[in-house]
Amino acid sequence: MPEQVRRTGRKAPARLADVAAEAGVSIKTVSRVINEEAGVLPDTRDRVEEAIRTLGFVPNSMARSLKTGGQDVIGVVIDAISDPFFATLVSAVEQQAVRAGLSVIIASTETDAARESEQLLRLAGQQLRGLIATPVGEGSELLRRLRSRMPVVCVDRYREGLDSIVVDDFGAAQTAVAGLIERGHRRIGFVGADDRHQETSGRRLAGYRQALDDAGIAYDPSLVARAGPTSDGVFAEVDALLRHSEPPTALFTASARAATVCLDVVREGGFPQVALISFGNFDLAHLFTPGISCIDHDPRRIGRAALERLTELIADPSAEPTTTVLDTAYVARGSGELPGPEAPENRTAAVAAAEGGTL
Amino acid sequence: MPEQVRRTGRKAPARLADVAAEAGVSIKTVSRVINEEAGVLPDTRDRVEEAIRTLGFVPNSMARSLKTGGQDVIGVVIDAISDPFFATLVSAVEQQAVRAGLSVIIASTETDAARESEQLLRLAGQQLRGLIATPVGEGSELLRRLRSRMPVVCVDRYREGLDSIVVDDFGAAQTAVAGLIERGHRRIGFVGADDRHQETSGRRLAGYRQALDDAGIAYDPSLVARAGPTSDGVFAEVDALLRHSEPPTALFTASARAATVCLDVVREGGFPQVALISFGNFDLAHLFTPGISCIDHDPRRIGRAALERLTELIADPSAEPTTTVLDTAYVARGSGELPGPEAPENRTAAVAAAEGGTL
Repeated sequence: MPEQVRRTGRKAPARLADVAAEAGVSIKTVSRVINEEAGVLPDTRDRVEEAIRTLGFVPNSMARSLKTGGQDVIGVVIDAISDPFFATLVSAVEQQAVRAGLSVIIASTETDAARESEQLLRLAGQQLRGLIATPVGEGSELLRRLRSRMPVVCVDRYREGLDSIVVDDFGAAQTAVAGLIERGHRRIGFVGADDRHQETSGRRLAGYRQALDDAGIAYDPSLVARAGPTSDGVFAEVDALLRHSEPPTALFTASARAATVCLDVVREGGFPQVALISFGNFDLAHLFTPGISCIDHDPRRIGRAALERLTELIADPSAEPTTTVLDTAYVARGSGELPGPEAPENRTAAVAAAEGGTL
Repeated sequence: MPEQVRRTGRKAPARLADVAAEAGVSIKTVSRVINEEAGVLPDTRDRVEEAIRTLGFVPNSMARSLKTGGQDVIGVVIDAISDPFFATLVSAVEQQAVRAGLSVIIASTETDAARESEQLLRLAGQQLRGLIATPVGEGSELLRRLRSRMPVVCVDRYREGLDSIVVDDFGAAQTAVAGLIERGHRRIGFVGADDRHQETSGRRLAGYRQALDDAGIAYDPSLVARAGPTSDGVFAEVDALLRHSEPPTALFTASARAATVCLDVVREGGFPQVALISFGNFDLAHLFTPGISCIDHDPRRIGRAALERLTELIADPSAEPTTTVLDTAYVARGSGELPGPEAPENRTAAVAAAEGGTL
């Protein structure tokens, strides 16, 4: 419809009254047709619809898009829509976007740098008002170049020179792993994606290492399982990890997906229970026995913050880039609270056993 | 960029060679800039980028969109992206769309008819190549009217006069519930959304009733829990259902979401185990004890079929509307196989007990 408005050379968008005049009916009748109310003759309805098309009339909700002359569409580029974290993030963006009169184009990268470039180029060819993206790989120079054409906000990962909405991956991981150590775990496995596929995983690994360091526990690379984006790859890695000659008593995963794979491996392989903390909350986490303890980095909040920032940048394209670091919450549900071999109560039992006690 | 191509009056899209000529560099250099390879001086890069902008050059992947002169965007309108069923469906549509050179705009209705109208009107204002939609309510006349402007394919629900990709809600529900009856259940609860929010729920309820009928079991409305779209509403309904003076020994849910709410209620309320079949598979269904038995109506397949049909309609807009009914698969994982009070083995035990047997 914007095309037609341009063609007729109108300055202001068509109004209800224009449609009514064009169709030769009352404003009330036009409103009835738009709202699909009863009591309009088929002939009249046809005439009104014809007038709506001719004038490129668009109801209130679309007025803003006509005023700016363009289509108010923003792009959202994420790893995968089928990943609940991103589905929820996109959902939050779309919810807010509708209120701001914006439509959302989605595109997924499948954490593949080549596909990311293809998707970004595709979006660059469309006249977007802005872009929200979870960049893949360190080399997304393309995103920076796009920034000269439209506002760009990175989510989940940050990029020098671009606006970013992130969480404190390092700090949240460090705190969670410190908790496992405090509860008596010494051999703690790390499960995450490799850097090529998800750099957040790398920062969460760094937090894990820091916690070990702080506690004077030597870093053991054989306890670190990192794989590509497929669940099968992660499954094999975790399976190997649990078959370790000195297996971990606790697992820390860099994603909810990895956590569910761990649950799968433990069950399928008949492995003894291990403590588990997931970086990333998930829908059914509370329904397991014990419930799965999570670091909740609320994708809804990330999505809302990203859209808010994007709206600011649309209003002021020359604004200096800022990085917003959102809080995370640790949700203790039991799996992260299982005591390790060095837990105070276990140590007492071990001492008792060594002394020929009740064991 | 299409705008600029039109402005320069070009018939054919710009080629690598045009960009090279405009920038006064070799084709190899242009290619280096596009592929972000090293070895290009900043000045040269700037010149190439300027030429790319001036000529509206778009790499291969976008050539089709330029050839047709429009933006190759399709709209996908679904209940909620945060619902895993729809997230997976949209993901499949997007995966296929990228291959067909199409971008995807998403919009959610939150199963609200007013919001649906608003979203459809918004999309109608954009020059889409086609639309995939899960219609809300019976009165979506608007969708039929949109059909005169662009191809429309309904998914998950069908509409007279429009192309639809659906599954056999009635038949799959009937078969699953017949299975519960066969395994000895007589009091079977139904949990689903109300018609205003999800009409598929109504068709699944009809299949449930048919199975009861076929077995000569009277339909008991007090075993039917239907609620709005929020999990809280469903929770309260299921809680009341399980507090029934003669509680159901099995539950059949019209959605995966409802099934997880049932798991929640049973756990929170400390209710005895009930048999459970979910219409709709979900990611972690196999990780519960017992695993959750599901009717799998594969959203990936629905999404792919919808995009395929939409592509056909884009090629032949006058094609007669067809309804495609996809198969479903019953996935037995244990929860739907729990025996009811009338199961052969239980009947034997009951008879033994009545006869002063081993119980």
